[in-house]
Amino acid sequence: MQNTCVIGIDIGGTTTSFALVDRSGGVLGEATLATHAEQPAHILVDRLCAAVATLHAALPPHTIIAGIGIGAPNACYQRGTVENPPNLNWGASTNLVALFRQRYDLPTAITNDANAAALGELLFGGARGMEHALVITLGTGLGSGIIVNGTLLYGAGGSAGELGHTTVAPDGRSCACGKRGCLETYVSATGLCRTACELLAQRREPSPLRDLSFNTLTSKQVYEAACGGDVIALEAFDITARILGMKLADAVAHTAPEAIFLSGGLAAAGDLLIEPARRYMEEFLFTAYKGTIKLCRSELPEGNGAVLGAAALAWHEVDMTAR
Amino acid sequence: MQNTCVIGIDIGGTTTSFALVDRSGGVLGEATLATHAEQPAHILVDRLCAAVATLHAALPPHTIIAGIGIGAPNACYQRGTVENPPNLNWGASTNLVALFRQRYDLPTAITNDANAAALGELLFGGARGMEHALVITLGTGLGSGIIVNGTLLYGAGGSAGELGHTTVAPDGRSCACGKRGCLETYVSATGLCRTACELLAQRREPSPLRDLSFNTLTSKQVYEAACGGDVIALEAFDITARILGMKLADAVAHTAPEAIFLSGGLAAAGDLLIEPARRYMEEFLFTAYKGTIKLCRSELPEGNGAVLGAAALAWHEVDMTAR
Repeated sequence: MQNTCVIGIDIGGTTTSFALVDRSGGVLGEATLATHAEQPAHILVDRLCAAVATLHAALPPHTIIAGIGIGAPNACYQRGTVENPPNLNWGASTNLVALFRQRYDLPTAITNDANAAALGELLFGGARGMEHALVITLGTGLGSGIIVNGTLLYGAGGSAGELGHTTVAPDGRSCACGKRGCLETYVSATGLCRTACELLAQRREPSPLRDLSFNTLTSKQVYEAACGGDVIALEAFDITARILGMKLADAVAHTAPEAIFLSGGLAAAGDLLIEPARRYMEEFLFTAYKGTIKLCRSELPEGNGAVLGAAALAWHEVDMTAR
Repeated sequence: MQNTCVIGIDIGGTTTSFALVDRSGGVLGEATLATHAEQPAHILVDRLCAAVATLHAALPPHTIIAGIGIGAPNACYQRGTVENPPNLNWGASTNLVALFRQRYDLPTAITNDANAAALGELLFGGARGMEHALVITLGTGLGSGIIVNGTLLYGAGGSAGELGHTTVAPDGRSCACGKRGCLETYVSATGLCRTACELLAQRREPSPLRDLSFNTLTSKQVYEAACGGDVIALEAFDITARILGMKLADAVAHTAPEAIFLSGGLAAAGDLLIEPARRYMEEFLFTAYKGTIKLCRSELPEGNGAVLGAAALAWHEVDMTAR
């Protein structure tokens, strides 16, 4: 019997993860490579192809690869490119899809990591069977992917779903994007640390966080302090949850999803973040939505959610090509 | 030769407008009725049917009516109902589609006025041929209809596009919906008047608006004062435009429309509102969107935009039924 799988690839600044994934999300084989961000993209693609061949050779005979999906920062689905990636020395625009198509004659697609996460949730996770959903990734920044009418929303120019850069406060915190008060400067791993730092200045309570410099402080340390009952850390989570809840209510007023899924490192904080965010979201929801929106953690496994998302993109592309 | 048209109906608290509209948006005949909000819905439907028959009889022979579209406040497309309409004494839920289907065996659909406006813009107005667009209606409140992938976005439960109830300020102005700081409490005809009133308290400049009570002040008076150079009125428009620009930038970060169309009474303020809103929106837009989003006035005629929107809904329903 033939098995069919796709290659899902998640390209990060430090590590590139990839896996061979079947149609039900089963991982047939997986591995990682150092990305070597300083080298040009075609070298990474060559190394990936060699590593995929090794992985493929170890599978049962007649296992067929049907397509390739790639999740990467600053990726554009329509153009097949990665553009000015912040953590990769690849320059203005790299057509990664073309580089793969030179090596494999297979349906190949690329999208940003948050869109891939949304497709993963739709195909393999908690959004299975849903027509309308929203996926938020909470890492260094805040990414988002919007599902409408059972498919990922790309919008004009392929650039829909940049909720991390909606405005919380017009004169608020400086964002890496050049604007001020963007959502991701408040709600993200770094946003949580900035809030904790602000509270250390405003409050007088003792806190283990007072012994850490801004540069060494991590969201994990804020989490651990909160678990230990530290009032500063607990308030930092509460402030983060309130802003998240308010902006999720705004997002609901746009596309009316059935459910919102939180993924990424900060979502692992679980009930320190998700339970209060749910409560605040309910407060801010317009009457017609109250009590109808599910807010929960991603149902994809924490470790390979990004790779599964990229594989979901590949399966989507395979199905589109077959039409 | 046969002509085919649809009935477009716009139900308001005071007046109900209706027209027979051909496929290219041509109005073959139109009229209005007093709504008589205190009477039950079936009486309005009977009066409408009689009036439509009169209109129809005056048209050239062999003019066929193919469908019915209705725009109404608090309407639900999926259920075919009007629910707790604020200005009509119709109770919790009225299945208006069923009432029309008892009288005409035709494809019939209902949606809220802002969604109808968006469909009108898509079929007959400035959004023709667009895949992604946003239509904002600025009247007593702020309504919105979102076009994605060439069609109106309904979302889960049919309730997408309630941008009037996104949050500008969590502890801001009381909204009729029960929440605080909703966009429509700032950006709408009444929002403009509330801002003018606030400025009368904050500033000391003389202004013709100081002779008007809160209850008699209208957005038209603020507009006329602004045209006359009144600094209070001019600043009220500038504040309104800034908040509108900020929240439109947020909306772009959700669905990435090609263009945003403003309709309704306040949009008639033209460059007092739209030009500064465009400038503020650019300021608040995420880098990837800057310089790419068209913001302009609706291209539907001011007088019968709502009826044309309802007609567009009818044509959409006719096409869906024919599939």
